Amino acid sequence: MPVSTGRLETFADGVFAIAATLLILNVDAQIPENVHDLGTQILDIWPSYLAYAVSFVTIGIMWINHHTMMAQIERVDRRFLIATIGLLMCIAFVPFPTRIVAEHIRGADAQDAALLYGFTLVVTAIMFSVNWFYASHGRRLLSADADAAIVSGISRSYLPGPYIYLGATLVAFVSPRASVILFMAIAVFYVVESSIFGAATEAA
Amino acid sequence: MPVSTGRLETFADGVFAIAATLLILNVDAQIPENVHDLGTQILDIWPSYLAYAVSFVTIGIMWINHHTMMAQIERVDRRFLIATIGLLMCIAFVPFPTRIVAEHIRGADAQDAALLYGFTLVVTAIMFSVNWFYASHGRRLLSADADAAIVSGISRSYLPGPYIYLGATLVAFVSPRASVILFMAIAVFYVVESSIFGAATEAA
Amino acid sequence: MPVSTGRLETFADGVFAIAATLLILNVDAQIPENVHDLGTQILDIWPSYLAYAVSFVTIGIMWINHHTMMAQIERVDRRFLIATIGLLMCIAFVPFPTRIVAEHIRGADAQDAALLYGFTLVVTAIMFSVNWFYASHGRRLLSADADAAIVSGISRSYLPGPYIYLGATLVAFVSPRASVILFMAIAVFYVVESSIFGAATEAA
Amino acid sequence: MPVSTGRLETFADGVFAIAATLLILNVDAQIPENVHDLGTQILDIWPSYLAYAVSFVTIGIMWINHHTMMAQIERVDRRFLIATIGLLMCIAFVPFPTRIVAEHIRGADAQDAALLYGFTLVVTAIMFSVNWFYASHGRRLLSADADAAIVSGISRSYLPGPYIYLGATLVAFVSPRASVILFMAIAVFYVVESSIFGAATEAA
Repeated sequence: MPVSTGRLETFADGVFAIAATLLILNVDAQIPENVHDLGTQILDIWPSYLAYAVSFVTIGIMWINHHTMMAQIERVDRRFLIATIGLLMCIAFVPFPTRIVAEHIRGADAQDAALLYGFTLVVTAIMFSVNWFYASHGRRLLSADADAAIVSGISRSYLPGPYIYLGATLVAFVSPRASVILFMAIAVFYVVESSIFGAATEAA
Repeated sequence: MPVSTGRLETFADGVFAIAATLLILNVDAQIPENVHDLGTQILDIWPSYLAYAVSFVTIGIMWINHHTMMAQIERVDRRFLIATIGLLMCIAFVPFPTRIVAEHIRGADAQDAALLYGFTLVVTAIMFSVNWFYASHGRRLLSADADAAIVSGISRSYLPGPYIYLGATLVAFVSPRASVILFMAIAVFYVVESSIFGAATEAA
Repeated sequence: MPVSTGRLETFADGVFAIAATLLILNVDAQIPENVHDLGTQILDIWPSYLAYAVSFVTIGIMWINHHTMMAQIERVDRRFLIATIGLLMCIAFVPFPTRIVAEHIRGADAQDAALLYGFTLVVTAIMFSVNWFYASHGRRLLSADADAAIVSGISRSYLPGPYIYLGATLVAFVSPRASVILFMAIAVFYVVESSIFGAATEAA
Repeated sequence: MPVSTGRLETFADGVFAIAATLLILNVDAQIPENVHDLGTQILDIWPSYLAYAVSFVTIGIMWINHHTMMAQIERVDRRFLIATIGLLMCIAFVPFPTRIVAEHIRGADAQDAALLYGFTLVVTAIMFSVNWFYASHGRRLLSADADAAIVSGISRSYLPGPYIYLGATLVAFVSPRASVILFMAIAVFYVVESSIFGAATEAA
């Protein structure tokens, strides 16, 4: 194949980095030029800061997951390239629902905003699974020395992804705010879990 | 030459990744701040999602094609660098006609929008051919071990490109919507063809 | 770990480069379309040029510091990855307060603008320290041949960072303009100090 | 030094790629949403297409020049890093005057627009010279095997840069349009010269 795994990772890193950095444009747009009472406005748009942080961390975690996945993969084929483009299309989409949630979570349309955000993350998680299970099925694209325990560990950690995000999304039908708090909790959980996992690994 | 093929690919990857990721700004701009009835609006801008997906996949496919081409090229000269800048100038242009098509395909100006989009893809396809045929003419820039079958395979696959896009563009004079559906079909065709091609390669 | 220090630096370089390059959008937005008396406007937005320069140089210096830090680090763990995402989240945030300061430093809300800018730099400096002291504590992630003098030199240079920025920020309660001049002075100091340091190194 | 020439080039490539790709946002903003008579508008904004092309090619040429320069440089010091940040600050600035020129070249404020564009290119050319002459003075940062003929060739080609752009800029006091045509001609000259130079090299 003309595209090596290294080149694929570089291209993907670019999309992850740009999507994460573009998130600030949504925060910026919340404060119009010639605004009166800047201090109040700066505090008033706190949902934008929260949305920025949650989406930045979520994209960052997905960036780590992508490398975790690619570290087991030795070669790519044309179908895997297409699947990667599908995944990156979801990652690059994230800034849009992030802004919508930040703007509407306190308003009458909170439910639609939360559903849009959640739906994006569900599809992204599905695309992650499509990439991984295509690559790992029958060890199709895995490197010869990919450890079976690590491979099945990744599979186990990817399987619930779409369901977890779907669950948090469906909560929006009852309470949009609870749904958004769950998206936040998922990001915080990963950060905390990583810290403990990191500590445990070190101790071992 | 001061620029290696590796550095050229890195720079090109950057432009491909940024152009694809910027596409989301066009979707985002479709929903104004303080919009009423968010849910209806989110559904109503479906042409923006479609345009986002078609252009993202189109840029992604061009990224694959660029690496397919560069994999056969061993060195660059100053004229090839200039030709690459011309190609990247077309790639980076894509977000603009994408937004115009998404906004106008349902309106009175659908034809002008489709022509702008199509014209951009025609010129991009021509620039791809300029790059490849300049590099491969008399094996000017090809690596010594570039396989003749692969080289002529790339040439065969590049030749019809501008004509296919030109055909789809001219359809806009009869029906702008049919023209846009053809651009979509070209992207879908490549995705499907890749899957079958990928499967066939695997079977062999 | 699936993410090597090289990959981490490439991803971080992407965020640094994008955040710095996006700064120009804030300058651009200061001149509305169809503006009357363009020449006067171009001169009148001088705070935007200054803010652009100060933030660009500040991000550039942080980019150098990040490589200074990473040059001593041999491996990363999951907690360090999370800490890096936190740091990059701060770097990518900089364009927002940069625009707010440029717009409001001459107005009634100069204090709030300066506080927002300063607070961002304080948190960024803290995140730098979190990254470095986590990595260097007990030489946790340092390479075996990391020179003890260089390591303690970096530690010494990082320790005052948050306090210097906090001091400059608190000045805003007395005089927002003086606060902003201090942020400028910190950037200029580093540039000048680098030149002298560079000259001294050469002489040695 | 913690930053290798390779890392420096990667960071610089990022800024070059982003600055060039952001240029399309200025074209895009020329066509407001809900525009009437799209076809006329698409044709009417031809200065924006021209400005896009000229600035994209100019940034592309500067990207080539940067690699031409870096190919002779073996190591960087702190002062060279600072000088590079200054150069990139100019490159990232280009999208702003590009938009101003495109919007105003047909209006009453064409002179101010041309002066802003020209001034940016003059300062950029000066920063290029600062980088190169700092690095090459007494072969300070050059690689041991840097060919003296190539080094003095680069010096000769860099020296007139600021004066050429200054000349084209000063023409704006007589005729802004002539000034802008000169900026265009400089870019076209380089493209044509490269083609001839490339052909001559090949023939040799």
